[in-house]
Amino acid sequence: MTRRRPGQSAITTPRNEKDRVEIQSGTEFGITLGTPIGLRVMNENQRKQDYGNNTMDLYPRPSHADWTYLEKYGVKASSGGGRSSARETIGRVAGGAIAEKYLKLAYGIEIVAWTSSIGNEYLFPPTATHPTAATNPEFLKLVETIDRKTVDSFLPVRCPNEESNQRMEKLVADFRDRQDSIGGTVTCVIRNCPTGLGEPCFDKLEATLAHAMLSIPATKGFEIGSGFGGCQIPGSIHNDPFIKSPAVPAGHSAAHASVQRPRLTTKTNNSGGIQGGISNGAPIYFTVGFKPPATIGQAQQTATYDEEEGVLEAKGRHDPCVVPRAVPIVEAMAALVVMDAVLAQQARQMARSLLPPQKNTIPVHEKQ
Amino acid sequence: MTRRRPGQSAITTPRNEKDRVEIQSGTEFGITLGTPIGLRVMNENQRKQDYGNNTMDLYPRPSHADWTYLEKYGVKASSGGGRSSARETIGRVAGGAIAEKYLKLAYGIEIVAWTSSIGNEYLFPPTATHPTAATNPEFLKLVETIDRKTVDSFLPVRCPNEESNQRMEKLVADFRDRQDSIGGTVTCVIRNCPTGLGEPCFDKLEATLAHAMLSIPATKGFEIGSGFGGCQIPGSIHNDPFIKSPAVPAGHSAAHASVQRPRLTTKTNNSGGIQGGISNGAPIYFTVGFKPPATIGQAQQTATYDEEEGVLEAKGRHDPCVVPRAVPIVEAMAALVVMDAVLAQQARQMARSLLPPQKNTIPVHEKQ
Amino acid sequence: MTRRRPGQSAITTPRNEKDRVEIQSGTEFGITLGTPIGLRVMNENQRKQDYGNNTMDLYPRPSHADWTYLEKYGVKASSGGGRSSARETIGRVAGGAIAEKYLKLAYGIEIVAWTSSIGNEYLFPPTATHPTAATNPEFLKLVETIDRKTVDSFLPVRCPNEESNQRMEKLVADFRDRQDSIGGTVTCVIRNCPTGLGEPCFDKLEATLAHAMLSIPATKGFEIGSGFGGCQIPGSIHNDPFIKSPAVPAGHSAAHASVQRPRLTTKTNNSGGIQGGISNGAPIYFTVGFKPPATIGQAQQTATYDEEEGVLEAKGRHDPCVVPRAVPIVEAMAALVVMDAVLAQQARQMARSLLPPQKNTIPVHEKQ
Amino acid sequence: MTRRRPGQSAITTPRNEKDRVEIQSGTEFGITLGTPIGLRVMNENQRKQDYGNNTMDLYPRPSHADWTYLEKYGVKASSGGGRSSARETIGRVAGGAIAEKYLKLAYGIEIVAWTSSIGNEYLFPPTATHPTAATNPEFLKLVETIDRKTVDSFLPVRCPNEESNQRMEKLVADFRDRQDSIGGTVTCVIRNCPTGLGEPCFDKLEATLAHAMLSIPATKGFEIGSGFGGCQIPGSIHNDPFIKSPAVPAGHSAAHASVQRPRLTTKTNNSGGIQGGISNGAPIYFTVGFKPPATIGQAQQTATYDEEEGVLEAKGRHDPCVVPRAVPIVEAMAALVVMDAVLAQQARQMARSLLPPQKNTIPVHEKQ
Repeated sequence: MTRRRPGQSAITTPRNEKDRVEIQSGTEFGITLGTPIGLRVMNENQRKQDYGNNTMDLYPRPSHADWTYLEKYGVKASSGGGRSSARETIGRVAGGAIAEKYLKLAYGIEIVAWTSSIGNEYLFPPTATHPTAATNPEFLKLVETIDRKTVDSFLPVRCPNEESNQRMEKLVADFRDRQDSIGGTVTCVIRNCPTGLGEPCFDKLEATLAHAMLSIPATKGFEIGSGFGGCQIPGSIHNDPFIKSPAVPAGHSAAHASVQRPRLTTKTNNSGGIQGGISNGAPIYFTVGFKPPATIGQAQQTATYDEEEGVLEAKGRHDPCVVPRAVPIVEAMAALVVMDAVLAQQARQMARSLLPPQKNTIPVHEKQ
Repeated sequence: MTRRRPGQSAITTPRNEKDRVEIQSGTEFGITLGTPIGLRVMNENQRKQDYGNNTMDLYPRPSHADWTYLEKYGVKASSGGGRSSARETIGRVAGGAIAEKYLKLAYGIEIVAWTSSIGNEYLFPPTATHPTAATNPEFLKLVETIDRKTVDSFLPVRCPNEESNQRMEKLVADFRDRQDSIGGTVTCVIRNCPTGLGEPCFDKLEATLAHAMLSIPATKGFEIGSGFGGCQIPGSIHNDPFIKSPAVPAGHSAAHASVQRPRLTTKTNNSGGIQGGISNGAPIYFTVGFKPPATIGQAQQTATYDEEEGVLEAKGRHDPCVVPRAVPIVEAMAALVVMDAVLAQQARQMARSLLPPQKNTIPVHEKQ
Repeated sequence: MTRRRPGQSAITTPRNEKDRVEIQSGTEFGITLGTPIGLRVMNENQRKQDYGNNTMDLYPRPSHADWTYLEKYGVKASSGGGRSSARETIGRVAGGAIAEKYLKLAYGIEIVAWTSSIGNEYLFPPTATHPTAATNPEFLKLVETIDRKTVDSFLPVRCPNEESNQRMEKLVADFRDRQDSIGGTVTCVIRNCPTGLGEPCFDKLEATLAHAMLSIPATKGFEIGSGFGGCQIPGSIHNDPFIKSPAVPAGHSAAHASVQRPRLTTKTNNSGGIQGGISNGAPIYFTVGFKPPATIGQAQQTATYDEEEGVLEAKGRHDPCVVPRAVPIVEAMAALVVMDAVLAQQARQMARSLLPPQKNTIPVHEKQ
Repeated sequence: MTRRRPGQSAITTPRNEKDRVEIQSGTEFGITLGTPIGLRVMNENQRKQDYGNNTMDLYPRPSHADWTYLEKYGVKASSGGGRSSARETIGRVAGGAIAEKYLKLAYGIEIVAWTSSIGNEYLFPPTATHPTAATNPEFLKLVETIDRKTVDSFLPVRCPNEESNQRMEKLVADFRDRQDSIGGTVTCVIRNCPTGLGEPCFDKLEATLAHAMLSIPATKGFEIGSGFGGCQIPGSIHNDPFIKSPAVPAGHSAAHASVQRPRLTTKTNNSGGIQGGISNGAPIYFTVGFKPPATIGQAQQTATYDEEEGVLEAKGRHDPCVVPRAVPIVEAMAALVVMDAVLAQQARQMARSLLPPQKNTIPVHEKQ
């Protein structure tokens, strides 16, 4: 965020979060000043009164970070591994909101995520014909058209299909009633992304997306484009042939941008908008897996910090499934990754634009 | 690699690669000097004579990086997007060999990868009971015991199970015969990893592993621990209860290390050895998906750089499946990620060790 | 600061600053938790009421950053280039206090700075015999013994010599009376620094010190060891011969540290404790030049943002000389640089310590 | 260098170096490809035959890096601290040549350095009136007009004034005859630099220049603009008033660039072209101090690695003064620093240029 630029930026309140963001620096009269933007969110909800000699202090919570934090830092805080809590993601959403604002204004980029599965209920279940949704025309249509308003009309699950949504909602309710929890997946699309984003070797665009997504608490997996299902289909189907880019209709969000559209696009999109680590202009889409939340109401047989066996019972609020709430976090992290990639590529383009035209390359009808 | 340290290091020749590595700096008498180690591999096989006005110069190859490289750099090289070729990975394997050497000597860390699926042939197929192999005791036993020698005894496929190996080999042969290609997955385990590796927020250990793996050419997905399958099972099963660490038998590789073993471990290992982004001492395992190779013998309908439709026919050698050859690359990237994490955590431990003992923390039987 | 480690840390109030530091995160019960330490200082003194159509808005102040900020960011803030104000240094001093605490506890490192000249009044004026103070035994004695308490007993100028201090104080008073300003230099010593700090090539220890010092507002120059004066004396005098390290007397601050002392030291110290970019264990000392403050009471002939000539008269408080107030800032930046170097070198040492002993090097009586 | 961009780039042979640079990657047909440019210089001159039980192996050379390298890395190489040798700078000069090429083509930037003093012989000796050359009109004229061809016409000393050059040459000869050595200073100017380069806080342009210069072997000091001498003159003289920028005559190198010239400049230039850490468009100039070379023919009383006193006599070629040879290294490092700053600022400008125009800022006749 230190590389922020001036421009109009009204921080949009992160969706579905009551936390108030206080802007401490970097803006004036609703305009960013180029200097770092300081944001502060007060945590009004942290447990203060209840540390001490209670169960939480005796037991590292199973599949939480209490134990690993102690091993890493050699010191036991009253918050345990609480810094790895999902509350930490508020900063990501706030930062992502600024990135999204820029990407929308400068390129018309749209980033939309939704719940694509909970447990074994899928929006597009893998089939023998379509081990990956990527080859399913209905999925591709969704990728081209879905918007946040539609997704949010399917609250609380955020799966943009009436029937799937209901089945998922019921599944979550079942797990809640059993004092248990369940995981699922979020799929996200980035539309109108310029070509040329991503670095060729270690910082391929899918690599930085994977890095960002796996840094979200409770994530277990990441798929770009056709993903794991794509590993099961023949190359002759998986390859994305090139075609001439269709004209963008006036009024379409992609027409808005001052940025030149690529001359070629792909007929299919198993690549998920990225080839050789670099965006090709087609929609970038990916899926992120979230595990069942570790905090459950059921009693769990485990061991204390002092290696003694015992039973831990968690009290208080438990969310049986984090997937719907993860949707805006996935969007925010995607925005931050694309923003970084955009700034890097803009630096290249600007540097190149100041040079005299090049000669002697292999002939190509150069568009730039 | 600039943070390399002195120590005995005989660069092991990367497995199954004929390329000769020439050490240019940083060692003397077989000992590293602390200064950067320069390695050079001559590419003896690049096409020189055959650029010019041929097919390759007219068509961006489908699902290759030719088109995106042109869009990114604005210049068309005779190598196309060839820098994204798998040949680039030789540097990763050479660097990983040095990291592996250190990790083995200092901690007894063992990194072993194998082919876990090709197409829809799996070593551990997902089932209703085990949507993820993580809950399958046979898989966990494999994770605890598999070594590279065993994996390499299953050449050319590198799937360490006689029957699966044969089915996979046959599948690859079928695709080769059809001038087509197929993808698959590689699973990798990191054993004897110390606790405390990984940073708590953006650089969680699974995030940097995902980054590294998705930076390998042709990858489509990454799963840590129970992965996407783990998103389908209840939290009550998915949570990993803590138990007292069993004693390590004398002679076991984990006994070799001077590093203290953790007092607790987990009974199950759906977390894949990482909790809250930080290693907990249990085996770290993950799976990486590789797409079917884009270069196939079949003719492909596509478009030229100049937006004209046409048919592209690739000539020459085509590998119908990259998965077996990706095994050492996955191992090398894992070694580089762990090496980075180890250096960061060592700095913390060393910094802490120079301070007087701490008081006033929440009581815990401090092991360190 | 994100690489901070656990340990006792009572944030010492920065010397001579009324600003209150509020710790927002990272500590509990007076102990750091390994997580980032958030500090916040409210700026109670900023001008709010007086922007608008006044002189400050018409004129970029000469030798301030108003003009360059506008050129860089393309936006004119009411604070002008105020972010480059010396007030920004409060964060450096707060961060430096934490670093100093660690360096003192872990190594007994002592960092002391003082005013070494104001205008042409010097504590050690250059002479034909001693074009650099580095060859002057009195200077070397000061470097070995000076402490902060002594320096602060010479307020307000902070030049630790009665006579020089008075002459400097009078000089500053003269400039203040003339509504003018004057610059000067600060010299700083880092004692008990372990050997081996600094990287061999681009991040030599003197390079990172120079970077840090020139990042302090109003600085014009940096000298390490004998500095510019050392460029005037013969190599036969400038070279620092090696001698066996003298025993450290019990009770001496250097005896406190658990860290092994080097076996060799240098007889003279024209190198300023750094050779080949790496600390050699001798006192590291350097000098930083500060320009006369740009804000003066006198009217100045200059031009408006709109290129019209005119006269700018500054109102309000003006400090005729920043040098004495810069003393703690120089110390803080030195602490941050050494802290970084210490962490990097500790990582090396720790990494090396886990390997089996080396053989086959050129014979040397290895101390480690 | 990994951020290199496409463009015409014929690597100019570094001045006065016989080493041949071999381009290994990143270019084709004389055009850079956007991918990293690999350069290799074979060191044809290293001592191989003469390590073993000789003097060099017994003694750490005074004021060399032999001792500190051993302390840092814990291993004694036959090259001692030889990696800190001036030979290392060949890579800097090669890299700088590419940066210079770009800066010249894109902005008309000119970087010229020269010898400004040797021992106590100065091109512009400090006087009571001009404690800094910055206030001397003759110096400012030199800064505006000097070019490399002129500097190189004053070989071997590279001081662009007949009389000073001769005095310096004689001084160096005297030291050579006495088997002794002497230091001196190099002054460098960067002309036609765009405004807005440098970051506001820790990476001020003078800070990164200082970092780069102090990373050159044998450097002892850095001054920007008026430097240490500027600390002795009143603020009323030191401040640089703004004036309307004069028109650039056609054919002038500054007219060549497509980049818009700033509307304001300063009447004097004590700031050295940088205010608040950011370039203001005026010539950036700075001075770097080099110590007398540590290798001298005279016998030196010192101690062995084993703490025994003894006498070290160096054999072979000794350069009595490195200053003239340092001139192209200073230029190269300046080019690398400016290149970095240019890329960072270009990213900002490009990012800003894609947004709709801003409103509601404090009124200013916006030029961009």
